[in-house]
Amino acid sequence: MADIEQVKKLREETGVSVSECKMALDEARGELEKAKEILRKKGVELAGKRSGRAAAQGMVESYIHPNKRVGVLLELRCESDFVARSAEFQKLAHDICLQIAAMKPIFIGEDMIPDEFIDGERKIYREQFAGSGKPEKIVEQIIEGKLSKYKQEVSLLSQPWIKDPQKTIKLLLDEAMAAIGENIIVKAFARYEI
Amino acid sequence: MADIEQVKKLREETGVSVSECKMALDEARGELEKAKEILRKKGVELAGKRSGRAAAQGMVESYIHPNKRVGVLLELRCESDFVARSAEFQKLAHDICLQIAAMKPIFIGEDMIPDEFIDGERKIYREQFAGSGKPEKIVEQIIEGKLSKYKQEVSLLSQPWIKDPQKTIKLLLDEAMAAIGENIIVKAFARYEI
Repeated sequence: MADIEQVKKLREETGVSVSECKMALDEARGELEKAKEILRKKGVELAGKRSGRAAAQGMVESYIHPNKRVGVLLELRCESDFVARSAEFQKLAHDICLQIAAMKPIFIGEDMIPDEFIDGERKIYREQFAGSGKPEKIVEQIIEGKLSKYKQEVSLLSQPWIKDPQKTIKLLLDEAMAAIGENIIVKAFARYEI
Repeated sequence: MADIEQVKKLREETGVSVSECKMALDEARGELEKAKEILRKKGVELAGKRSGRAAAQGMVESYIHPNKRVGVLLELRCESDFVARSAEFQKLAHDICLQIAAMKPIFIGEDMIPDEFIDGERKIYREQFAGSGKPEKIVEQIIEGKLSKYKQEVSLLSQPWIKDPQKTIKLLLDEAMAAIGENIIVKAFARYEI
C-alpha cells in the first residue's frame, strides 16, 4: 500500500487526484520519481484524449512588464466557466504570459509556422554556408538541424518552460489538462515591445 | 486683450500652452467656442507637421474587462521616454484601450484594410440587393455608402470616441499631439474575446 505522506507529496507536486496518486505509487512500488513518471505518461495520454474536446470557455490574461515597454495578451481556452474562474487556470494563464514576455515566441505551435517563414530562414542559413567548402550534403544536414532548432525556439508550445526547463510548454499544458480534467488550448497571443 | 479667466478655462479644456490660448482668444475676439475651433484647427495642423517625426519611444498598455472574457493590448508610440512616462500619455493609452474593448475595431486606419476584406464585404452587400428590382446605379451608390460606413466602423482612427462621440480617435490623437508636442502613433493593437 502507498504511504500516506508520499501520496500527499505526490499530489502536491502533480495536482492529480488522491486516488490516481495512490494507484501510481502502487504501480511504482512506492518510488516517488517512478510514480511521477507514470502520472506524467498518463497525463499526456489523458490530455491526448481531451484535446479533441471543444474549449469554448476560458480567459483573456495580460502581462505588462514594470517598465511598460513589453506587454503580452493571451487567450487561454478551457471547457467550463467553472475552470476558467479557478485559481489554478488563472495561474497557468499568468505563467504562460510570463513565458511569452521572456522568450518571445512568434507562433503557438510549430505546425503554425508558414512555409515562407521557414523558406526565408533556410535561405539565410544557405547564404551563411555559401563558399564554406563543406560538402553539399553536410551543409544541408547542418541547415536542417538549425531549422529544427529555430522552429522550436519560435514556437511557444515547443519552448522549455522558463520556470522548469525540463518541461516544454506543451508538457506544462498536458499536465494542467490531466490535473484539471479539461481540454486547455492556447488560442491566441500577442507580444509587443517598444 | 484676452481675459485671464477665459485663458485659464481654455487651457484647462484644451491642454494647450497659455500663450497659444491667449493668441487664440485674441484671434477669436474673446469668443471661447471660436478660440477652441481655432486651436483645434491649429492642433490638427501641428499634428500634421509632427506626424512625420520618428516615434521610437512609447508604452505597451493592456485592459482586461472585469469578467476576464475581453482583453486588449496596445502599443502606443511617442518621441521621448519623458512623454512615454507622463500621466497624460498613459491616460491616452488607457482611453484607447477602453475604446478598442468597447468598439471592436479590426484595423488601425482605413488605409490598412486589405482589398480582399473590402471585396468580401462588397460581395455580401451585392447579394443582399440581388433581385431587389432597384436600378444598378442606385444599388452601387447604396453599396458604396454602406462600405464607407463599414470602413469607418472597423477602423480605430475613424471611430467616434466613446467618451465624446463628437471626436474621432484620430482627432483625439491630433489634440494629444498638439497638447503634448510630440508625434503619437497607434503602432499595433490586439483584442481577444472569449
